[in-house]
Amino acid sequence: MFTLIKTQGRARRGTFTCAHGGTVQTPVFMNVGTQAAIKGGLSAHDLKEIGCQIELSNTYHLHLRPGDEVVRSMGGLHSFMDWDGPILTDSGGFQVFSLSSLRKIREEGVYFSSHLDGRKIFMGPEESMRIQSNLGSDIAMAFDECVENPATHDYAKQSCERTLRWLERCKAEHDRLGALPDTVNPGQLLFGINQGATFADLRVWHMKEIARIDCDGYAIGGLAVGEPTEVMYEIIDAVEPHMPFDKPRYLMGVGTPSNIIEGVARGVDFFDCVMPARNARHGKLFTWGGTMNLKNEKYKTDPLPIDPECDCPVCRSFSRAYLRHLFKAEEVLALRLAVMHNLYFYNKLMEKIRNALDEGTFEAFRARYSGRLEERI
Amino acid sequence: MFTLIKTQGRARRGTFTCAHGGTVQTPVFMNVGTQAAIKGGLSAHDLKEIGCQIELSNTYHLHLRPGDEVVRSMGGLHSFMDWDGPILTDSGGFQVFSLSSLRKIREEGVYFSSHLDGRKIFMGPEESMRIQSNLGSDIAMAFDECVENPATHDYAKQSCERTLRWLERCKAEHDRLGALPDTVNPGQLLFGINQGATFADLRVWHMKEIARIDCDGYAIGGLAVGEPTEVMYEIIDAVEPHMPFDKPRYLMGVGTPSNIIEGVARGVDFFDCVMPARNARHGKLFTWGGTMNLKNEKYKTDPLPIDPECDCPVCRSFSRAYLRHLFKAEEVLALRLAVMHNLYFYNKLMEKIRNALDEGTFEAFRARYSGRLEERI
Ligand SMILES: [Zn+2]
Ligand SMILES: [Zn+2]
Repeated sequence: MFTLIKTQGRARRGTFTCAHGGTVQTPVFMNVGTQAAIKGGLSAHDLKEIGCQIELSNTYHLHLRPGDEVVRSMGGLHSFMDWDGPILTDSGGFQVFSLSSLRKIREEGVYFSSHLDGRKIFMGPEESMRIQSNLGSDIAMAFDECVENPATHDYAKQSCERTLRWLERCKAEHDRLGALPDTVNPGQLLFGINQGATFADLRVWHMKEIARIDCDGYAIGGLAVGEPTEVMYEIIDAVEPHMPFDKPRYLMGVGTPSNIIEGVARGVDFFDCVMPARNARHGKLFTWGGTMNLKNEKYKTDPLPIDPECDCPVCRSFSRAYLRHLFKAEEVLALRLAVMHNLYFYNKLMEKIRNALDEGTFEAFRARYSGRLEERI
Repeated sequence: MFTLIKTQGRARRGTFTCAHGGTVQTPVFMNVGTQAAIKGGLSAHDLKEIGCQIELSNTYHLHLRPGDEVVRSMGGLHSFMDWDGPILTDSGGFQVFSLSSLRKIREEGVYFSSHLDGRKIFMGPEESMRIQSNLGSDIAMAFDECVENPATHDYAKQSCERTLRWLERCKAEHDRLGALPDTVNPGQLLFGINQGATFADLRVWHMKEIARIDCDGYAIGGLAVGEPTEVMYEIIDAVEPHMPFDKPRYLMGVGTPSNIIEGVARGVDFFDCVMPARNARHGKLFTWGGTMNLKNEKYKTDPLPIDPECDCPVCRSFSRAYLRHLFKAEEVLALRLAVMHNLYFYNKLMEKIRNALDEGTFEAFRARYSGRLEERI
């Protein structure tokens, strides 16, 4: 499934295959389609156009709406949204802890109220596996607790011990569901998730423990939740040596272009983040010279594309002046075009990172872009 | 510019050419992109995909935002929105009378306040021509007063006499602007607009008067503003015999599929309406069996496309269940896909009307569809 082609320092160049799509080239950025659609009006077809290799959808949202049983009855998420490439579904854990109210965490799982209508819901490892099995994604994520930042060492320890026990239950239920004759996607993989807040000792202990359970890949969760960037990098540095070398590593919910370059430099293969689409919807665009705010008055009659270096479908056709007008006029097309550009930029960033790794020039690439891409122009 | 190929009863099959695009086949439905974008997130490129022949933008809106001088400095509307086909701009009159507040109508034009920020603006025939010249559309519409419904005979008479005087001023200013060396679109045409509320005598008088002024086409304005459908048809019946036979006729802001079929039967060549896109954004979709509300519970797990008879990009890929989910989940993609289908439906309706005219079967087509397309399924 995962083949490591080459390393440069700790950075890894690989390929990945699963039950859908062709060969995924890693490092890869997964494009987020929370509710089986990309925010800003992009369809699965548009994802093809902008170089997306893996689509990511959210278990919590799809469980609430339209309901995973509905998706299952439609033949699974691939058929439902007409995307034939790989799909990763998160476990629902992060949203249970960040969106829902009145939650109670117990050994068996989490009791919470829907953020949509207050309906009481229970989700534990088995429920998360069952929902993701109904969705038929190619990669299911283990159900974990993402503890709040900051957390006490005591609480984080208890929590990551429980997340370990939950992983064992996820693994058993995932195996059982995958073997059922009418399972939606018999090739569904399971990734475990490392937790432990910002405590390196807990993170390392937990990583060693989950590495014993035979997962198809391992994620680092619970980062980029408010801690300083340097702390995030330190945690990755501490955990990474204990992650199985021959399996894909996924840094969840990260991040800026610079965060991604730094993540790759620290041995990460998979990334996802809502930032490029969310920033786009606010007119904040990524370019190879830094970030820009398209709503700025100075772009009023600017005939240039968002980024003259970009060859995305938006930059090939439309000017900054036109896009600024669409934002000012509150046209939905503004959202769509901005999101297309930003996601294309992220997918292109990964391609450039891979090319640099192929050519053995990743450190030069990192030195050139890691800082520059954070600058405002 | 306009060639009449064939008639069946009063229905007309023709072709039309102007400064942009190839040959437009008539009868034609113009797709509305009010602020130089189609509501629901469609770009000019998408219009090509769904069979749009002529795009229509609004003078009033573009004058306010981004400003017609901005559009002019970007090379005109075609370049601004990256649409190389024909563009018609309305005169601004309808919006001045329907959207703005505190308006005062004088012989020289209309004083009003912007509906966006209350800014005081004056627009008369010369201003409307200047704005449309800056936009560089292929068809400019004369500046007219669209009187409220109902109106008294006295007021409607005064008003359409003034609208006649305004057309003379429009024509003079349009000729002057079109001859300037730096005019954006030297090939811009001018269409006159018939008014007279629901009074057949005024309508006929006004039509005869404006027919003396050499316009490139003639529109019937001020209908579909609340009067009964039968009254609208009676007015068209009264006016049509007095419209120049060799020039295109445009029924402004009309209407439902049935209204369009009935308009064609009464000798109309051009149509436009915000209804297909507006209805789409509320989940109301047109099909060859009637109209449907996609938000209906019964479509929750319906695997069929919106309309199994439709071969639009949406119906080729997505199910009613998926689209219903997108509406329920308030995803922008719902708007985009629904608008694409409805506009495609309208463009296809015109194609079917033209084919029926070509084959001499228009009356059979009218009998089959004029009622059915209004039904709810
Ligand atoms: Zn771009
Ligand atoms: Zn369709």
